[in-house]
Amino acid sequence: MASAESAELRTIYQSWSDRMAAAPDMDLPTLRDLFEEWHLPTAEPTGVTYEEVEAGGRPALWCLPLDAADDRVLLYLHGGGFVVGSIATHRKLAGHLAKAVGARALVLEYRLAPEHPFPAQVQDAVAAYRWLLAQGYAPERIATAGDSAGGNLAISTVLALRAEGVPLPAAILPMSPWLDMEHVGKTLEANADTDALVQRAVVEAMSGMFLGEDGDRRDPLANPLHCDPTGLPPCFIAAGGHETLLDNAELFHEKARAAGVDATLEITPEMQHVHPFSAGRAPEADATIAAMAAWVRPRLGLEAR
Amino acid sequence: MASAESAELRTIYQSWSDRMAAAPDMDLPTLRDLFEEWHLPTAEPTGVTYEEVEAGGRPALWCLPLDAADDRVLLYLHGGGFVVGSIATHRKLAGHLAKAVGARALVLEYRLAPEHPFPAQVQDAVAAYRWLLAQGYAPERIATAGDSAGGNLAISTVLALRAEGVPLPAAILPMSPWLDMEHVGKTLEANADTDALVQRAVVEAMSGMFLGEDGDRRDPLANPLHCDPTGLPPCFIAAGGHETLLDNAELFHEKARAAGVDATLEITPEMQHVHPFSAGRAPEADATIAAMAAWVRPRLGLEAR
Repeated sequence: MASAESAELRTIYQSWSDRMAAAPDMDLPTLRDLFEEWHLPTAEPTGVTYEEVEAGGRPALWCLPLDAADDRVLLYLHGGGFVVGSIATHRKLAGHLAKAVGARALVLEYRLAPEHPFPAQVQDAVAAYRWLLAQGYAPERIATAGDSAGGNLAISTVLALRAEGVPLPAAILPMSPWLDMEHVGKTLEANADTDALVQRAVVEAMSGMFLGEDGDRRDPLANPLHCDPTGLPPCFIAAGGHETLLDNAELFHEKARAAGVDATLEITPEMQHVHPFSAGRAPEADATIAAMAAWVRPRLGLEAR
Repeated sequence: MASAESAELRTIYQSWSDRMAAAPDMDLPTLRDLFEEWHLPTAEPTGVTYEEVEAGGRPALWCLPLDAADDRVLLYLHGGGFVVGSIATHRKLAGHLAKAVGARALVLEYRLAPEHPFPAQVQDAVAAYRWLLAQGYAPERIATAGDSAGGNLAISTVLALRAEGVPLPAAILPMSPWLDMEHVGKTLEANADTDALVQRAVVEAMSGMFLGEDGDRRDPLANPLHCDPTGLPPCFIAAGGHETLLDNAELFHEKARAAGVDATLEITPEMQHVHPFSAGRAPEADATIAAMAAWVRPRLGLEAR
């Protein structure tokens, strides 16, 4: 059974769903303000300082754990359907992950849809990665990471870098990635009763803003379920058993393994979308973050802890 | 003329005023989400770590600048009309102030009105202060600080402590304090055209939730303009020249000096309500924080910098 602390995340998601249902014409500023509550389930990580920076032309925030290696980086892409979310919603989550890994994290404020539709988000993440290289960080000491739409970006950014011939990062860490822009995944219906937030209407609205009405919903940079994963770096994919997006993680995992990619899938039973948001409070969130950290440390050239 | 960076705070306030005017029936969760944007004008302070704690029964956040004295404390009471605002809105502002002073700051999540009307807020702040004493912090090494409604609490908490016979803190640091629960201040009308946020309708709504319809609007613990300031610790009161609440600061300053209190008033011309929110971005905000820090350091037994 989910811990009481993880159940809190479900309660917050249900309150958002109720408020969105009660205000079907909710405007975008109000929707974005609502999702700013996303930071609430995350405890403040201790021993982390922060620093604003401009990374490839976009605002970004360094999360700097006090005792972390200063030459290992997680490029963190936040979730929110490419439409909502910010540095503020994900600062603490990225801080927990950085601290567990023993690296610094760079949380990027990429441009949001619908003002800036696809591929602005991928372009911004690629620019931030190139900025990291220009700062002297070695690609083999960088991992991309992200949740939900940011889990998509953690993958699609690497696909774009591959196409541009840029040296790839050492690893990819998607949490509850949202990849299926066609809305054909089976868990979208099968888990509709257990997922308190991500319903068909939500992903349809978000993908419409991200891709526009005429956008190609099978473009691999928008929907990595249609990519060729050959040659991608190792991937650790985390997801929750109660998610409607569960099979996005499963399908990408299968596809990557079939192409010879070193891919690991961790599904935590009964968890909601991006359950690591309960970091520092819920044991399931902390266990997943610890598993991600243990998996990625050797791939970043850090010793096992 | 106000700097471009300070003008940004006015732009944010005007956007809130416009959104509140466009949605006169805005519900409380939406209003609270809107005010959560308050953290946006503040730059992330570098070199500060954070730690959640329970202080006298309420959640609180330590802001811990890396090189600060660990035995000097600012008890920080956030603004928001006693109805909105949170640790998240004020974390960065309190971090800047703590860093400038060279002390740690404790940001308190006191109970909000209307769910918890007056005097719940004062009780929570008193309990947090008593908790600090129980942790071993000396009263002469503590200052209360706060903005807007929190500037009121920075004063009223000390009045309540005095009534209870508790040793008082060394200093009080109110920024743009909101004290006038009768809405009789002259600048409420005189500066209505220059203040982009704090209009009569806003303070009437907030005071109604804080005090209820039958509440005593001259109770000194709700409205320190009606207190006896005799024996209060030194006060440094900061305010902005374009504020409707400007004369709250002026009247309290006059009253305190008349009672023999060591009181200083700093008015920065053309500034909006709580202009230090632009800390780390606007020169006026940084100058006020530097002035507060320079004033309070010797009063906390710290050397001049």
